[in-house]
Amino acid sequence: MEDWKKQNLDIETPNNITIKGIIGLLMGNTDCNDNRKVISLGIGDPTAYSCFHTTAVAQEAVVESLRSTKFNGYSPTAGLPPARKAIAEYLSRDLPYKLSLEDVYLTAGCTQAIEITLSILARPGANILLPRPGFPIYGLCAAFRQLEIRHYDLVPDKGWEVDLEAVETLVDHKTVAMVIINPGNPCGNVYTYQHLKKIAETAKKLGVVVIADEVYGHLAFGANSFVPMGVFGSIAPVITLGSLSKRWLVPGWRLGWLVMNDPDGSLKSPKFVERLSKYCDICGGPATFIQAAVPTIIEQTQEVFFRKTINLLKQTSDICFEKIKEIHCISCPYKPEGSMAIMVKLNLSLLEDITSDIDFCFKLAKEELVIILPGLAVGLKNWLRITFAVEPSSLEEGLERLKSFCQRHSNLQNGC
Amino acid sequence: MEDWKKQNLDIETPNNITIKGIIGLLMGNTDCNDNRKVISLGIGDPTAYSCFHTTAVAQEAVVESLRSTKFNGYSPTAGLPPARKAIAEYLSRDLPYKLSLEDVYLTAGCTQAIEITLSILARPGANILLPRPGFPIYGLCAAFRQLEIRHYDLVPDKGWEVDLEAVETLVDHKTVAMVIINPGNPCGNVYTYQHLKKIAETAKKLGVVVIADEVYGHLAFGANSFVPMGVFGSIAPVITLGSLSKRWLVPGWRLGWLVMNDPDGSLKSPKFVERLSKYCDICGGPATFIQAAVPTIIEQTQEVFFRKTINLLKQTSDICFEKIKEIHCISCPYKPEGSMAIMVKLNLSLLEDITSDIDFCFKLAKEELVIILPGLAVGLKNWLRITFAVEPSSLEEGLERLKSFCQRHSNLQNGC
Ligand SMILES: Cc1ncc(COP(=O)(O)O)c(C=O)c1O
Ligand SMILES: Cc1ncc(COP(=O)(O)O)c(C=O)c1O
Repeated sequence: MEDWKKQNLDIETPNNITIKGIIGLLMGNTDCNDNRKVISLGIGDPTAYSCFHTTAVAQEAVVESLRSTKFNGYSPTAGLPPARKAIAEYLSRDLPYKLSLEDVYLTAGCTQAIEITLSILARPGANILLPRPGFPIYGLCAAFRQLEIRHYDLVPDKGWEVDLEAVETLVDHKTVAMVIINPGNPCGNVYTYQHLKKIAETAKKLGVVVIADEVYGHLAFGANSFVPMGVFGSIAPVITLGSLSKRWLVPGWRLGWLVMNDPDGSLKSPKFVERLSKYCDICGGPATFIQAAVPTIIEQTQEVFFRKTINLLKQTSDICFEKIKEIHCISCPYKPEGSMAIMVKLNLSLLEDITSDIDFCFKLAKEELVIILPGLAVGLKNWLRITFAVEPSSLEEGLERLKSFCQRHSNLQNGC
Repeated sequence: MEDWKKQNLDIETPNNITIKGIIGLLMGNTDCNDNRKVISLGIGDPTAYSCFHTTAVAQEAVVESLRSTKFNGYSPTAGLPPARKAIAEYLSRDLPYKLSLEDVYLTAGCTQAIEITLSILARPGANILLPRPGFPIYGLCAAFRQLEIRHYDLVPDKGWEVDLEAVETLVDHKTVAMVIINPGNPCGNVYTYQHLKKIAETAKKLGVVVIADEVYGHLAFGANSFVPMGVFGSIAPVITLGSLSKRWLVPGWRLGWLVMNDPDGSLKSPKFVERLSKYCDICGGPATFIQAAVPTIIEQTQEVFFRKTINLLKQTSDICFEKIKEIHCISCPYKPEGSMAIMVKLNLSLLEDITSDIDFCFKLAKEELVIILPGLAVGLKNWLRITFAVEPSSLEEGLERLKSFCQRHSNLQNGC
């Protein structure tokens, strides 16, 4: 028996923090004798609040395809052709060229699209550029695939834009890709057309593929409207990742996509496509009957449903931004314009007995039953990520508790 | 641009055949001017036939959990606890000990359970023992994870039992696991209690984990009843893989499981569990609302539904076995007792113008619109895998066409 034990101690586990992991620990740290409800501003899943329910159109499309009994079987590896076609057309609306269904691979959420992309690009000695702050699944995935991680910074004072000069110094001939997340998690940034174009030009110059995580695509409510990276696909090849999760408010449906925005065919060699589709064969993928509902979901979701979410996110991001101004020990360099999260900086020197963002979040969970993600989990120590995709009154109460927590722990006379 | 091309030519793609891949090619080889319908005896997905439809209980359980709007959000990494618990209880019915929900991880079908298991066991220089013939996803997965593959033979004349002597010679200190598939695909074998116990004892002696693929669990209709490998979990640790796909006839739902049958805790160290759950974080996983339906599906599916499938499979396997006897150039060493497939041996010396199993299958597809998997795809050259999970009249017609194909190509005077 000892043999098994020894063997599995040999295995190296990437030691990244996962968001789910840390949220779980924070939840476990709440005081059970406190009768107030736990308020989570920690995870990008607003579906618990009825104001963030998906549209009946989407739900009933799935019910119908399930009840048709026609979609209980396996789907083809890359997904059902009508679903791939519907996504190709949906994304082509915002592009200067047309995607075809062959460009689209269906995945179990954007998470699996990330995993597939990194795995098919990985090779011995290769490295990948990830944003800091970023989304931890990239780091975890890269570590499992022995892809060396090189972080480039997002610049808070420039709307969390990519530090392109740093990117140039990080790249070498073993760099396979750079990841951008737009609209951004955890920063709530929405990049301009110009900035995205510069990213593409840099990628071209450096010979790297751009992986564009657009899981928050179209969730933009500020001055900059959402521009998909695929627009610049003929400058540099772009692999766009997305899902129904955020825009349709159904993260549990696990329906995502990996799309080749590569109009000049510089990436999609037969070998690459073969590797991609073989890889999809081992992955599991999304349920066939959910895939079958995709064309209806995309064609029949009303603009009013999307607008309602956008308005609500605008409202809650405003609440968040304004309330943060009232709290001395945290500050926000950038008013979020998209996605569901905001990064705020913690000023530990204004706090009496808090040693770090982790310490802050654990004490906050314990004392106020409010869950906030420590910045370390997304790569920025002593920052916090607050999710504002929360029903407004809960958000207000959560922020109020955050405020009184900060006041209580302040080292200023009148609280912070 | 050249850089991208060069880079992605560097990537090594495992060159295994995939079942979906070859079936696709065979389908493409059928004669479009032939007005007969294509009959597929190629893939283990019988859901196209109404006699193999799932039960309304399962379908409506999913509709209900979807419509509740409570399961549109993310599930915890390892799956919804009630679903994990239901599967733990379901599997414990046949075990001498009780599984707990912590032993169960939900996956996007058994396919993803395979991928996860191989990935968490993989480490530099490791090897894994796979059955030959086997299920090609294992080989593909192992190749993507740089796990060296060592094949052990299944012995046709002994009911496709594992050649345990060969296993002993193949194992070294870098062997992490051996895979068994029971009930077997592609062979239709169902192992006895005694044989499974011997496998466990061999695994114990050699210090390897047993990966027991029981995706066809309970689909046994011969003399041997199905015994789960987990019964021997205290001899050697067993990782059991399964899904709703086959027994509930819903392969498209992508709901599977990875279960630690390890009552002595020799495998589940905290490190192993951490690695497993981090790995699950990057995988995507099954839809939450389908997970939510699992307790109802397991508790409320009537025995009569299962019995109907078993009776039908018994009937179709009999049809298959009897018909094969009438065809000279193929022979079957073993009457299938479970799963949905049978392996038959091709005698090329009795055929005039057929050079291999691949050649046979392509010509058969072209001339008779019948799709059969060449044995090479499952590791046995010049054998064929025939799937009998087909509506009886289609199966009969498919086999009749197979027979006339063989007669036409026979080098005997009166056909074979
Ligand atoms: C930047 C980013 N990418 C990918 C994902 C995963 O998306 P999905 O729920 O579709 O798997 C998330 C989820 O929060 C995310 O924030
Ligand atoms: C032996 C074996 N394992 C695993 C699988 C995959 O099962 P699932 O459909 O649950 O992914 C199959 C499918 O045919 C199989 O035959």
